[in-house]
Amino acid sequence: MEKINLPEKFSLFNDHWSPKIIGELNGQHIKLSKFQGEFIWHKHDEEDEAFFVMKGSFTMELRDKTIELNEGDMLIVPKGVEHRPIAQKEVWVMLFEPAETLNTGNVADEKTKTVLERI
Amino acid sequence: MEKINLPEKFSLFNDHWSPKIIGELNGQHIKLSKFQGEFIWHKHDEEDEAFFVMKGSFTMELRDKTIELNEGDMLIVPKGVEHRPIAQKEVWVMLFEPAETLNTGNVADEKTKTVLERI
Repeated sequence: MEKINLPEKFSLFNDHWSPKIIGELNGQHIKLSKFQGEFIWHKHDEEDEAFFVMKGSFTMELRDKTIELNEGDMLIVPKGVEHRPIAQKEVWVMLFEPAETLNTGNVADEKTKTVLERI
Repeated sequence: MEKINLPEKFSLFNDHWSPKIIGELNGQHIKLSKFQGEFIWHKHDEEDEAFFVMKGSFTMELRDKTIELNEGDMLIVPKGVEHRPIAQKEVWVMLFEPAETLNTGNVADEKTKTVLERI
């Protein structure tokens, strides 16, 4: 059992939309990801997903509204709800979701990551 | 679905060792707690528990070692592992754990909180 320093973990990668696993508990993963640009519309049929902004800001588009998220903000997107994150500038995000969650949910796309790196 | 601002949520309470629920997903709770002083030795037989330091620092005593946690550090304590947090000064902590997790785990104590406030 060792502590995990999140800023240090963020310094280990620079790619966007490619979540890295930093911890696992109770069948859930804690992941770090850097977002920049536009992601794709998708949903997770079985998994709720939490986003926590560690640095920067981004917009979560939903079908009925848009939510601006800044450092210190968290958003929980319930299962089945379509969403699309958009980041004008790079943003650092912590994700908390079930281990089986696929980044693009119900959509197979060039951004889909089937195997995640553990850092 | 609304965003949750963590610094704002922390400003809503001042009591120590009394976790507040700020979100729920996949049967897990996201909680905020302020620690100050010494907690009790305990373990969670069925639940892994993640601690993330938002502000300040604290020490996690384990039976075989002691881990110093500072802002930006996370520690995942696996189920069954005895632990005792100690904070010389007030520290703000985010917790991830199953909804059924009791703060004092296997020990009934004056610090035990059976009903948690949602903020």
